[in-house]
Amino acid sequence: MGTLDMIAKKRDKRALTGDEINDFVRGYTRGDIPDYLAAAFLMAVFINGMTERETVALTLAMADSGKQLALMQDVVDKHSTGGVGDKTTLVVAPVVAACGQPVGKMSGRGLGFSGGTVDKLESIPGYRTDLSIQEFSQQLREIGLVLTGQSVELAPADGKLYALRDATGTVESLPLIAASIMSKKIAAGAGGIVLDVKWGLGAFMQTLEDARSLARLMQRIADGVGRRSAVLLSDMNQPLGCAVGNALELKEAIGLLTSTGKIDAGFREHCLTVSAHMLALGNHAADVKTGYRMAQDALQSGAAWEHFRRVVARQGGDLAVIDDPSLLPNARWVETIPAPHSGYLRAVNARIVGETAVRLGAGRAKKGDPIDHAVGIIVHHKVGDQVAKGDPLATIHANDETKLQVARQSVLEAHAWSDTPVEPLPLFY
Amino acid sequence: MGTLDMIAKKRDKRALTGDEINDFVRGYTRGDIPDYLAAAFLMAVFINGMTERETVALTLAMADSGKQLALMQDVVDKHSTGGVGDKTTLVVAPVVAACGQPVGKMSGRGLGFSGGTVDKLESIPGYRTDLSIQEFSQQLREIGLVLTGQSVELAPADGKLYALRDATGTVESLPLIAASIMSKKIAAGAGGIVLDVKWGLGAFMQTLEDARSLARLMQRIADGVGRRSAVLLSDMNQPLGCAVGNALELKEAIGLLTSTGKIDAGFREHCLTVSAHMLALGNHAADVKTGYRMAQDALQSGAAWEHFRRVVARQGGDLAVIDDPSLLPNARWVETIPAPHSGYLRAVNARIVGETAVRLGAGRAKKGDPIDHAVGIIVHHKVGDQVAKGDPLATIHANDETKLQVARQSVLEAHAWSDTPVEPLPLFY
Repeated sequence: MGTLDMIAKKRDKRALTGDEINDFVRGYTRGDIPDYLAAAFLMAVFINGMTERETVALTLAMADSGKQLALMQDVVDKHSTGGVGDKTTLVVAPVVAACGQPVGKMSGRGLGFSGGTVDKLESIPGYRTDLSIQEFSQQLREIGLVLTGQSVELAPADGKLYALRDATGTVESLPLIAASIMSKKIAAGAGGIVLDVKWGLGAFMQTLEDARSLARLMQRIADGVGRRSAVLLSDMNQPLGCAVGNALELKEAIGLLTSTGKIDAGFREHCLTVSAHMLALGNHAADVKTGYRMAQDALQSGAAWEHFRRVVARQGGDLAVIDDPSLLPNARWVETIPAPHSGYLRAVNARIVGETAVRLGAGRAKKGDPIDHAVGIIVHHKVGDQVAKGDPLATIHANDETKLQVARQSVLEAHAWSDTPVEPLPLFY
Repeated sequence: MGTLDMIAKKRDKRALTGDEINDFVRGYTRGDIPDYLAAAFLMAVFINGMTERETVALTLAMADSGKQLALMQDVVDKHSTGGVGDKTTLVVAPVVAACGQPVGKMSGRGLGFSGGTVDKLESIPGYRTDLSIQEFSQQLREIGLVLTGQSVELAPADGKLYALRDATGTVESLPLIAASIMSKKIAAGAGGIVLDVKWGLGAFMQTLEDARSLARLMQRIADGVGRRSAVLLSDMNQPLGCAVGNALELKEAIGLLTSTGKIDAGFREHCLTVSAHMLALGNHAADVKTGYRMAQDALQSGAAWEHFRRVVARQGGDLAVIDDPSLLPNARWVETIPAPHSGYLRAVNARIVGETAVRLGAGRAKKGDPIDHAVGIIVHHKVGDQVAKGDPLATIHANDETKLQVARQSVLEAHAWSDTPVEPLPLFY
């Protein structure tokens, strides 16, 4: 059966067989199937969808398109669907590793309004995020903690398909998103995976229902390939924590790991919850509650911080800089915007904050654009806070005066007010 | 607004503006829009459809993508959606021209199981089907009759889009089919067009309802661009006439034009009806009934035949050959298959007959394949005929003994039998 027949089947809303999906992924990865055929196929999938069985087959075919790490039952990975101010991995990975459970994490770069862990780590001078698979495996064995970029050797079909989806308007498809995420996780060999699926203004999923559907689909894929999984549905209507921007987020993570400075309670709670689920899923904790307490201990004892220092040292990062975060890249202009009036915060629009940070230079409009690690935004308040006129509302870190000017306006627009008390937003749903 | 936004709109079932459609057609024809983007767009159109307004805009943009002949109000074109044994143009064009109404017709080649007028004309040694637009216009002015191939100078967007549709499984889309047909007709300048829309086993439209929808859509396009139109819905469950294959069909047409040999009544009736509508639409006949009588006269008087000879001579064809059709290419094996038993014919499957002719070499599996003008099939009976065992059922003209063998079997499979009388199929619906 040819590619054209397979496309016609999906076009006519008929389900594909595993063999058909395999042939497509293999043919496209090898370059035998041209982009225009794959584009027609992706659009048919976008509009007509895929069954769970098809999605599992697609995920496996993609995971199988390059090298694969052997399955490690005691390793638990995590994946966040991305958001504004999400520096969770920087804290969670060393916390879990400090509890004795190995963490080998491959992360992505920021794209659009959403940040990426790799960019945040690269704020540390010298830090290498391009480990080979061999280096990855060796380091995981030796120190139980790796924080690196996505290896191009794993699931190469995903990279090629993602670029074509990005170029043809077929990104926002649940089966394609789920297969993309899960194929990389499966190829990376973790026996379990905690899925942090975010919804809201600053997330790719705009509704709780969409987030739930994506989460369900990813869990079915995990079930289908015999990997354990746990799902958290979390809020991304307002930024996670206070800092948005690469070095700024790294500083916030270091603050939490070292228990110094002002610690955002929501961010701390988020990190502990994710860690607890990872520990429970990896059987290092009897249950989530025990895992939570273990994670608290790892933070308070400084063990997590020690593990973070260890991974930074091992991957070539400058320890002096993380020990004294004031040495991290600093922006030329640092300006705090006062609250224009008194009231309760009804919204701190994560999308606007994220896009403002990108325009300051913290993110990229398209793949490959350079970024400025120093710039970004600190939001000083969360939804539900009562703020007095003149209180610090947000602090802008900028390296360009024109961009600073634009950011001032945007930051104000991101905050919506109420005269009457407002309920805080939940962390999880 | 970029191409990607336009694709996303169609993907999300929103209607496109005329400007968006124009930009796409212009950009794709120029080569600014790559195939993969156009492929994603075509698939979105295939699945989500187009409104009439969008289809009219697409047609106009395609008609506008190359040269256009000036509108000629007195010229009436015809288009058949294609079928098996459809040699109507070879008769209708000289009939209408003989009645004093100019006919300038650009035809296509056969593709798949369906034949093409250009291939049939090329059975005549020397006959040119590649007239330039200038030659086309001059000949139309001078002798009132042109029978040539589709000019690549007209509606080049159609050629490029058709090739991509063929390669991506997006051919069978009503708006895309209608725009493809009508854009060429509009660019060719005829003031009126008779649309012969066929449905059935040997047609692209498999149901009468689909044929009706396509006909309606093409009429709306004609209305939208100020061209007169008339629609005939005709049967293509059994072959039209008796001959299927290029020189064989040309011989059948010459037989009708010269009133010699065995003339198929259905084929004659079909040609007279199409001619009558063309004459009425071109105002050379007061009404269809008058047009029908004029067409009969043109056939019987030999005026139509004289016009056919004139166009063949003008376009370089060998008159000696059409005056003595036994000089046309002849196949090496000519074998008549007898009826295997007595009974009434319940079906003469046009699809099977057409595909068998293609396998004998009369058609092409893909664009650019060479064809054999001599080979094909003559069916001796129509649905409803009472046939006695041993009567001639079909005659196979073959140039390859293996193919002949396969054809014997297929020809028998094309005929379905009944013990009780069967109603003949209608010509028109």
